[in-house]
Amino acid sequence: MNGAESLVKTLLANGADLCFANPGTSEMHFIAALDKIAGMRCVLTLFEGVATGAADGYFRVRQTPATTLLHLSPGLANGLSNLHNAKKAGSGIVNIVGEHASFHLQHDAPLTGDTEGVAWPMSHWVRTAQSSAAVAHDAADALAVARATPHGIATLILPADASWGPATEVACVADAAAPQAADAQALQAATVALLSGGDAALLLGGQALRSKALDWAGRIAARTGCKLLCEGHNALLQRGAGRVRVERLPHDVARAYETMQGITRLVLVGAKIPVAFFAYPNQPSLLVPTECEVIALANAGQDVEGALEALARELDAPAGCTQFVAQRERPGLPHGKITPQGIAATLVALIPEQTIVVDESISVGHRFFPLTGGAAPHDWLNSVGASLGYALPVAIGAAIAAPDRRVLALVGDGSAMYTLQALWTMAREALNITVVILANRSYNVLRGELNKIGVSDPGPTALGMLSLSGPELDWVALARGHGVPAGRAHDLGELAREMQRGLSGEGPYLIELLI
Amino acid sequence: MNGAESLVKTLLANGADLCFANPGTSEMHFIAALDKIAGMRCVLTLFEGVATGAADGYFRVRQTPATTLLHLSPGLANGLSNLHNAKKAGSGIVNIVGEHASFHLQHDAPLTGDTEGVAWPMSHWVRTAQSSAAVAHDAADALAVARATPHGIATLILPADASWGPATEVACVADAAAPQAADAQALQAATVALLSGGDAALLLGGQALRSKALDWAGRIAARTGCKLLCEGHNALLQRGAGRVRVERLPHDVARAYETMQGITRLVLVGAKIPVAFFAYPNQPSLLVPTECEVIALANAGQDVEGALEALARELDAPAGCTQFVAQRERPGLPHGKITPQGIAATLVALIPEQTIVVDESISVGHRFFPLTGGAAPHDWLNSVGASLGYALPVAIGAAIAAPDRRVLALVGDGSAMYTLQALWTMAREALNITVVILANRSYNVLRGELNKIGVSDPGPTALGMLSLSGPELDWVALARGHGVPAGRAHDLGELAREMQRGLSGEGPYLIELLI
Repeated sequence: MNGAESLVKTLLANGADLCFANPGTSEMHFIAALDKIAGMRCVLTLFEGVATGAADGYFRVRQTPATTLLHLSPGLANGLSNLHNAKKAGSGIVNIVGEHASFHLQHDAPLTGDTEGVAWPMSHWVRTAQSSAAVAHDAADALAVARATPHGIATLILPADASWGPATEVACVADAAAPQAADAQALQAATVALLSGGDAALLLGGQALRSKALDWAGRIAARTGCKLLCEGHNALLQRGAGRVRVERLPHDVARAYETMQGITRLVLVGAKIPVAFFAYPNQPSLLVPTECEVIALANAGQDVEGALEALARELDAPAGCTQFVAQRERPGLPHGKITPQGIAATLVALIPEQTIVVDESISVGHRFFPLTGGAAPHDWLNSVGASLGYALPVAIGAAIAAPDRRVLALVGDGSAMYTLQALWTMAREALNITVVILANRSYNVLRGELNKIGVSDPGPTALGMLSLSGPELDWVALARGHGVPAGRAHDLGELAREMQRGLSGEGPYLIELLI
Repeated sequence: MNGAESLVKTLLANGADLCFANPGTSEMHFIAALDKIAGMRCVLTLFEGVATGAADGYFRVRQTPATTLLHLSPGLANGLSNLHNAKKAGSGIVNIVGEHASFHLQHDAPLTGDTEGVAWPMSHWVRTAQSSAAVAHDAADALAVARATPHGIATLILPADASWGPATEVACVADAAAPQAADAQALQAATVALLSGGDAALLLGGQALRSKALDWAGRIAARTGCKLLCEGHNALLQRGAGRVRVERLPHDVARAYETMQGITRLVLVGAKIPVAFFAYPNQPSLLVPTECEVIALANAGQDVEGALEALARELDAPAGCTQFVAQRERPGLPHGKITPQGIAATLVALIPEQTIVVDESISVGHRFFPLTGGAAPHDWLNSVGASLGYALPVAIGAAIAAPDRRVLALVGDGSAMYTLQALWTMAREALNITVVILANRSYNVLRGELNKIGVSDPGPTALGMLSLSGPELDWVALARGHGVPAGRAHDLGELAREMQRGLSGEGPYLIELLI
């Protein structure tokens, strides 16, 4: 057994049997080991950001870490943006990054770089394997970091000689410690705050947005009259008919600030103090009114669902909270011009139960999201880190995590371009993903930002930097080039037709929605 | 004037009038400044790796730095792989990276990250602007780093409040110091080494590969009988009819080692001691025979051309070195099956004078490159850092640097996928770039690597990780999706027809060459 084989065996022995890979020469021993040792599902991606984003999506849906296989410091660098997104989403991931043989590093070969330096900004844990004998334990330590609460991004750097050298062991990952319960004092403070009148709110995030936790939140709201809010960007929000409704903080700073107005007591459960997406001159960074008392009941490292249950029991909140539960709406399929309302109605009418919606629709999405609460029960995933190019890769991971469910990716054209190589992996793995490209042919959100800094009438240079036209991207051709069938929708009727096709067919389908 | 305006004015006042941009919210003041202040050519890219790679290509051809405009730490991260390539190629670049307002960073907003930490591994100089008043001097310092010899990657991080705050100054960049001359002792040692018999070699790199420097090298070879070698991966090699021929060290370790056999004295001029691309068990990292004496005449930080001239004068090398100069070959256009020889003959027959060839053809390229020395005089660019996805972006920069010349990008399909978004920018800027995708539908180089570690008959898992089929990429569709016209070639006759079309037309053209 060599180091690479002990690594693969250790991963498999501990249930880590999925690897999103974009390998190079330094990873060939790992690849050779996969042939010898059965059980690892390897998913090839043609760009590293697809691998890391897919691992993020897999974790969000399955709540267990996948691995990525990346090639040296520049390969890892290509995966960083989606590791940033995964880190912000609280996803656990194990990155295995090939490296030059330890004795070769000093010679500054073409691909030599500071791999640990590249890893640190987007990792919680980084280690370079010191020998082939140590690799199994290194892998177990990395898995432990990814599985602990809060979950971590663990990057294990694997010099080629640690792969090809001898090894004897397969290591075990110790069971993760149970997440810590909410502090008794915080629980008491939250209880008092919620019982002191009607201008209190729960701000929910992370694990508090799974349906069981939401049930407890609904009971608390029914008992105390508090508002139920969630963060603006969530790793996974369970919603739709039968689930407790929460109001998502708007992305727009002014509107978010408005939503928070009048709240005098804010209880954070799995959420952080809300902060403006960007700062603007003479505007506050924090979205909490100055007079508002903030009580942190449980953070992402704690037992968030348990904290809500304890709070509900402390408050004697009775079962049942019907008024907070979303009802199923069954609108007819809309026709005519594309509007946010029309997109929302189409989604409500068509998305099947348990659909996983991966949303990176940016400027339009903020307008149709609030209108989709009456759809069949579904999961809604946002980009928590907000680096563009998260949706297509995350959709891959989600589809692999839940092969019986439909995945719907709603992506702006500008965003989708960052990781369009994901389409090929969707086709190769025959994943049931329907991609809707919201093609406004511009970085539309930036038009708004330019406006916010006082430029209401941008000149040709600025406009050129915000426009995706001249030439226009042809998403139907781009999809077909990657092996994904595709269609185009110019109006709501065509959108419904194309969505029905995508959501009922086998394998991926892409819809270019001209908005 | 605000900080962003003082930055744009400082860049323009110092001749830095080209910016490859992929902006976001934090860069809106910079974008607004571009409308107010005329003179900056802004080239939009749809992925940051295209921007950084284009800046690399621009520098290689024009020898003066361009700027990039990138968005926060994840945007910079997307540009790192091609910054790695640029750094290894010795290209000077100024990256301007937007950042949250300084007072906002503490709140850990979604896009907050360790921007300096992301920058350092691929930069020689990193600074976060401390105030709007300081931005002009920061920009001048960054430009000075990029212009100094050796050239540097300078990354200036620009917090939003340093953009929008007041500024008064436009700063000047001091003239770069002249590069240092070769050391007299090294010159003496090189002279002695070359005069001691016929088994000496000059190993040329960097500036030694421009035609004037090559002329001196040819005179030295004519005088002493030394071998003329160049490094395996070069930023820009001037070659073709009328230029002094040099033998490029093979990429393959065994073949490179063979080339070096018998050399007892090696004089490095702008080159480093040759090192194996990757290490293998029980094989040496350095490609120099143990008994060989190595004399470092001039490194990349010194006056490399001057060193060759001084050496030629020291040796009394007479003008004229006809036997080392490549003669123009005029083969007929080949027909039939695609072969490395056929590709070479097609290139020799068709590439116009002063073509800039950007080569990332990896597994096939090594076989046709040596056969193309009889083409019209041209520049040949390799990936020095070897991180995949360099060619399409570098072609953009090269075409903008030399609008009167033709650019020919020869790229493997696997490599091209890392930065295929470059095609859109080629179309938007109507650049005269002919892209030949060498579509072997696999990471073919890795098949060879798997073989080298003893796997001659890989199983289905390994094969799946090295194959780009199932589905096959359709490069004609991918090109059209980006607004680039395209055709396909199945044999040499079709290749010639398509290349003639690409090399004579206006704007970009892509050829999918099925090999």
